[in-house]
Amino acid sequence: MPDATDINHFNKHASAEQSAASAAPAASGFPGLITRETEPQNLEFPFPSLAGRLTPTSQFYIRSHFPIPDLPVASWRLVINGAVNNELTLTYDELRQLPATTVSATLECAGNGRARLAPKPKGLLWEQGAVGNAEWTGVPLTVLLERAGVKAEAVEVIFEGADRGEVNEEPKSPGAIHFARSLPLAKAQQAEVLVVYAMNGQPLPPEHGFPVRLVVPGWYGMASIKWLTTITVSTVPFEGYWQTIEYAYWQRVQGHPTMVPVAEMQVKAEIARPMLHEALAAGVPYRVHGAAWTGESAIVKVEVSADGGSSWQPATLLEKNVPFTWRLWEYQWTPAIAGRYKLLARATDEQGQTQPSEHSKDRRTYMINRVASVEVLVH
Amino acid sequence: MPDATDINHFNKHASAEQSAASAAPAASGFPGLITRETEPQNLEFPFPSLAGRLTPTSQFYIRSHFPIPDLPVASWRLVINGAVNNELTLTYDELRQLPATTVSATLECAGNGRARLAPKPKGLLWEQGAVGNAEWTGVPLTVLLERAGVKAEAVEVIFEGADRGEVNEEPKSPGAIHFARSLPLAKAQQAEVLVVYAMNGQPLPPEHGFPVRLVVPGWYGMASIKWLTTITVSTVPFEGYWQTIEYAYWQRVQGHPTMVPVAEMQVKAEIARPMLHEALAAGVPYRVHGAAWTGESAIVKVEVSADGGSSWQPATLLEKNVPFTWRLWEYQWTPAIAGRYKLLARATDEQGQTQPSEHSKDRRTYMINRVASVEVLVH
Repeated sequence: MPDATDINHFNKHASAEQSAASAAPAASGFPGLITRETEPQNLEFPFPSLAGRLTPTSQFYIRSHFPIPDLPVASWRLVINGAVNNELTLTYDELRQLPATTVSATLECAGNGRARLAPKPKGLLWEQGAVGNAEWTGVPLTVLLERAGVKAEAVEVIFEGADRGEVNEEPKSPGAIHFARSLPLAKAQQAEVLVVYAMNGQPLPPEHGFPVRLVVPGWYGMASIKWLTTITVSTVPFEGYWQTIEYAYWQRVQGHPTMVPVAEMQVKAEIARPMLHEALAAGVPYRVHGAAWTGESAIVKVEVSADGGSSWQPATLLEKNVPFTWRLWEYQWTPAIAGRYKLLARATDEQGQTQPSEHSKDRRTYMINRVASVEVLVH
Repeated sequence: MPDATDINHFNKHASAEQSAASAAPAASGFPGLITRETEPQNLEFPFPSLAGRLTPTSQFYIRSHFPIPDLPVASWRLVINGAVNNELTLTYDELRQLPATTVSATLECAGNGRARLAPKPKGLLWEQGAVGNAEWTGVPLTVLLERAGVKAEAVEVIFEGADRGEVNEEPKSPGAIHFARSLPLAKAQQAEVLVVYAMNGQPLPPEHGFPVRLVVPGWYGMASIKWLTTITVSTVPFEGYWQTIEYAYWQRVQGHPTMVPVAEMQVKAEIARPMLHEALAAGVPYRVHGAAWTGESAIVKVEVSADGGSSWQPATLLEKNVPFTWRLWEYQWTPAIAGRYKLLARATDEQGQTQPSEHSKDRRTYMINRVASVEVLVH
C-alpha cells in the first residue's frame, strides 16, 4: 500500500493526470466487487453496474496469482537488461521524469466468462466482469527500449513482476516462480504499450500493480504485468509457465495441435442490463445496454437477438470510437408478451471478426467470446 | 415450466396466498442473479441488494444438483410409503385440497460463504448470497404423516426428489441417483415442516421445485427437497449419498471423528452494504445494514466492529422477530479518516450461540459462519 509520503510525492507530479481523474465516474448501482477467490484476491466487476466508458478504479476487476507484493517506491527499481546495448536501472523518480502519455485501454482476463462454460471448468469462475476500462498514464515502453538500445538479434521482450509463489495445482510450477510474460518485439515497440504508474489519474492502488505495471492495450490482461521490476530483451521465444502451461491454448499448425500463448483479445459483446433473471414488464420498453470490445481492431457493429438467435436487430453504438477501448451500446426492446426470453448480443469489428456460437475446445478455458445469452423473466 | 393450464388451475385456489404476494417487494438495486455454475443452474442472490424481509422470487438463490426435471401436474404423484399403516398416493389436486398453511422461512445453502475460504475449496464457490427468505405455502408434513399412520418403530423420514443424475466428481455416485435426504422423525413432526406448492404467493417456479417441494425451516437448504415425489418412513437411519458423502461433516464422538449429516443452520450475520471495496467518504454517516439468521432459535443481538474486532458496537434489530426468518439489522457508521477498513458483523441467538472467528476444518466446506469481514475504501 502506498504510504503518505509516496502519495504526496506523486501528487507533485500528477497535474497531467488531473483531467483524466475528473473524467472517471463515481461508482454507481452496485458499488463494489464480487468475490471469486479471497487468497489471492480475485474479484470481479459487477458488470450490470456498467455506467460509463471508464470503470471506477475501486470497481476494476482484480486478478492476482499470488499475494500482493509490498514495494516501497524508495527501494523499487526497474531493470532493463538482456539483449541491449546499455543495461538500465531506473528509480521511481527517474521513471516519472521521462516523457509520459495517457492511453484509454480495456483489459479483460483471458478466462472471463468461464462460469458459463459447462461442465464447470477448473480455474477461476469469472462470469462476465473480469473486464474493465481505465485511463493509464506512464512512459511508452519504446522510450525505455530506445534508451537501452535493443540489439538486432532480439525477438521478444520478457516482463517480470515482483509477485511470486508456488503453483500448487497440477501441473505444478518448479518451486516458487515470479509471474512473467513476454511480448513479440513488434508488439513491444507499439506506441500504445506503456510502463504505467497512474490509473484514472491516481497512483496505482496496490492490487493493480503499485508502484509500476505494464499495460498492453489490445491483449488479454495477463500480458499487462503488475508490480513490474524487470524487462529483459530476449533473443529466443520465452517458454515460461504462463506462456506454456497457463494462458496458452491449442492452435492447429499443419494439423498438429500446438500450444501457443494467449495474446490478442477476441471480439466480444456483453449485456450489462437486463441481468440474469431480471424481471421485466410485457409491453414496456426496456433499455438493453452493454459494452463491446476487441483486440487491435475497432468495434463497428453490435446486434441483439431476443429470439434465441433467429433474427438480429442492430444496436446503437454510443459516443465515439476510442482506440483499444470498449464501445458502449444500447438497444430499446419491448417484450410483447409474458414468458422467459434469452437475449443475445453479438459484436463485429473492423476486420470483420465476429463471435462464434460455441466455445472451441482448442481454446481450453481461455478467450471465451462465443455469443452469450441472458435469460430474463417477462411478466 | 408450468404451462398455462397449471397456472390457471393454481390461481383458482390461490386467494389465500394473495396477501403474501402483495407483501413481496419488487426487485431492487441489482435485480438479478450471479452465476456460479450454468449447467446445472447454480445462481446466487446478489446479497448487497437486500432490501426487505422477503427475497423476490426472481432473485432467490438457485441450487441445483442435476438438470431441472419436467413434472407436469397431471402426471405428478406424491407417494408416502415405508413404515406406515396406509400407503398414500396423492395427485396435485388432492394435495391442494388438504389443510394448508403459510410459513416465512430463511433457506441457506450449507456451502454459502465458500468463496471466502482459503485455499480455494472444491465445490460451488458461493460468496454470501446462497441464502434467501420467502413465504412458503403448503400442507404441513404432519397432516400427511398422520393420514399415513407412522408405525411405532419409525426413526426417520426420507424425502426423494425427481432430480437425478450421476455425480462425476470424486467420490462418485453409484451410477445415476436421485437427490434424497432424511429428517429425524422428531423434526419431521414439527409443525413448521411443509409440503409446499407456493412461494411468495405464486406457484413454485420450475427451478424452485415445481410442482411440489419440501421446506424444512431452521435447517440448511439441502433438507428442503425440491421436485418432491416420494416420502418414505424408515426404521433405520438413512445413509444416502447426500447424508454421508456430501452435506456431511466431522463430529467428534468420544474423540473419534465421525461423519454426520449437516442439519440445523448456524447463527450468522451478513453485511449487505457496504459491499466489498465500496468507496465511502470520511466524516459522512453511512448506513451499514444486513441480515442475521440462525437455526431453531431466534436472533437477539447483532454487533458491528470497524476496527478488525477489537471493539464491537450494537446494531439495531429491525421490525419484529418472525420464527425461522432472518432478522434485518442496521448500524450507523461514520468513518473518521481516510483509509482501508475491515467491517465485521457478529450475531448471537437466544440460545447464546454466536459466531466463531475461524472456520473449523471439521466442518469441511459446510456451515461456514465464522465472522466475515468486508473491506471498504474510505476517501
